[in-house]
Amino acid sequence: MPTDSHFSDRLASAIDDAGSPICVGIDPMLERLPEALRSLTDDPAELVAAFCMGVIDAVADHAGVVKPQSACFERLGSIGVGILELTIAKAHERGLLVVLDAKRGDIGSTARHYAAGAIGIGADSITLNPYMGRSAIEPFLDAGLGAFALARTSNPDSDEIQSARLKNGSTIGEHIASIISDLGSAHIGARGLSDLGAVVGATKSADGARLRAIMPDQVFLVPGVGAQGGTVEDVRSLTRPGASSVGELGVLVNSSRSVIYAEPAPRETWTDAISRSAAALAGELRSLI
Amino acid sequence: MPTDSHFSDRLASAIDDAGSPICVGIDPMLERLPEALRSLTDDPAELVAAFCMGVIDAVADHAGVVKPQSACFERLGSIGVGILELTIAKAHERGLLVVLDAKRGDIGSTARHYAAGAIGIGADSITLNPYMGRSAIEPFLDAGLGAFALARTSNPDSDEIQSARLKNGSTIGEHIASIISDLGSAHIGARGLSDLGAVVGATKSADGARLRAIMPDQVFLVPGVGAQGGTVEDVRSLTRPGASSVGELGVLVNSSRSVIYAEPAPRETWTDAISRSAAALAGELRSLI
Repeated sequence: MPTDSHFSDRLASAIDDAGSPICVGIDPMLERLPEALRSLTDDPAELVAAFCMGVIDAVADHAGVVKPQSACFERLGSIGVGILELTIAKAHERGLLVVLDAKRGDIGSTARHYAAGAIGIGADSITLNPYMGRSAIEPFLDAGLGAFALARTSNPDSDEIQSARLKNGSTIGEHIASIISDLGSAHIGARGLSDLGAVVGATKSADGARLRAIMPDQVFLVPGVGAQGGTVEDVRSLTRPGASSVGELGVLVNSSRSVIYAEPAPRETWTDAISRSAAALAGELRSLI
Repeated sequence: MPTDSHFSDRLASAIDDAGSPICVGIDPMLERLPEALRSLTDDPAELVAAFCMGVIDAVADHAGVVKPQSACFERLGSIGVGILELTIAKAHERGLLVVLDAKRGDIGSTARHYAAGAIGIGADSITLNPYMGRSAIEPFLDAGLGAFALARTSNPDSDEIQSARLKNGSTIGEHIASIISDLGSAHIGARGLSDLGAVVGATKSADGARLRAIMPDQVFLVPGVGAQGGTVEDVRSLTRPGASSVGELGVLVNSSRSVIYAEPAPRETWTDAISRSAAALAGELRSLI
């Protein structure tokens, strides 16, 4: 829900309020939903809706930001998009900011349609794919959304593209990063951070110092912690030096599966397990400042 | 609707049956819908649905393929995705193949969700963004969908990324093209074409010969003809040499705005104008063989 204020300022406040740069990814997968929930109904849409509502209530005391994965909702067709809208509304009701993980990447009028669609379902910000150029990013910022453009992703097979070296010595990922930095410089909020952030995987922390030097004002949305093997120490190399609060570290660290599919201990409910897991990661990430 | 047969074979047949490699892009934009339609109702969803049905009936005798732009439907939220489903069903009813223009680009399990979602709403194929790597493409092919991955797009600002030169002398676009060619080689149909095609803009035809050399088996989905300034001569440089039928030229030439928003002549209905415009472009493209 874009407002006059900068997304980056609202994000820094949400992180400061939570005391931790944790972001919980909401990736509902039917086959992984808790047994206790699956025994209640066979209807996929009802199941996914109930799961997402439960996740939000379970993490709202520990996180300031959630990141629903659009693909998991789109999988259910139009009814899934309806559940995505409900999930976002519920997140706002609990005071959470929403990053819509949609990795959209198209230009001009098409980008404006995607931006209007994201705003229409209530997203505060969105992930974007920059391969088509600046016109695939600018319309989202102009529409008042925050954005995180892919720079260096956490999957192993991204190296073949993102680590390839250009004639001038920089990698493709670094070339994209410099475009993100330049585009983002026109959208800096009061806290010194840009409304245009970047996706930088925790598993690629070897590239972290260089990417941080190229993108000093970007919030890095960092996937890959937990299930994908990235650690809190990997994240440390991605933070902004000299930050005075956790909200100004310039990282938003996402964990999806290891939080939302946390195994309940004996006599623990599935939502208790999610709460415990979110609290534990939030605590670990507090050590970054 | 994936079947056991190769998408590339069904595509070649559809183009041969139409006698032309024309693809009509369905990009419904409320503000551009025909006056005659807008006078009937104020409901955006009804208007878009009626427009899409009219477009399909108007072009079905001239084209074998349509390409709905997902963003234009997503803009209307869950109801828009419902209209997209209806539009695809109507296209199939009229014997048309469907390329879902969604430019999705995410990896692993997320890509599998997107593929299942595209199959669920009836798409035969989908456009993809390859920036994250091979794992952002393979799951769609494995699910039985055809795919067109972005290589060299038609917008002017794509040059900054796609034309940047690597140490080995090739451009980023050519590097991506070589990955597309390699991935696609495992999915070649009876007509010698791959189920994995590439998006190559008509406005970038200067790069065409080189891209064709790198991707001999790919069908190029070619945007940029018409409103964006690309011509049929630009397309000629992208075709496969020695093709024995129009379906084996290896090009699928898309036009959206200049067909579906064709201005009606005096005493012509809006659907007549679309039919006339589709027939004209189909005729022009026939000269490619």
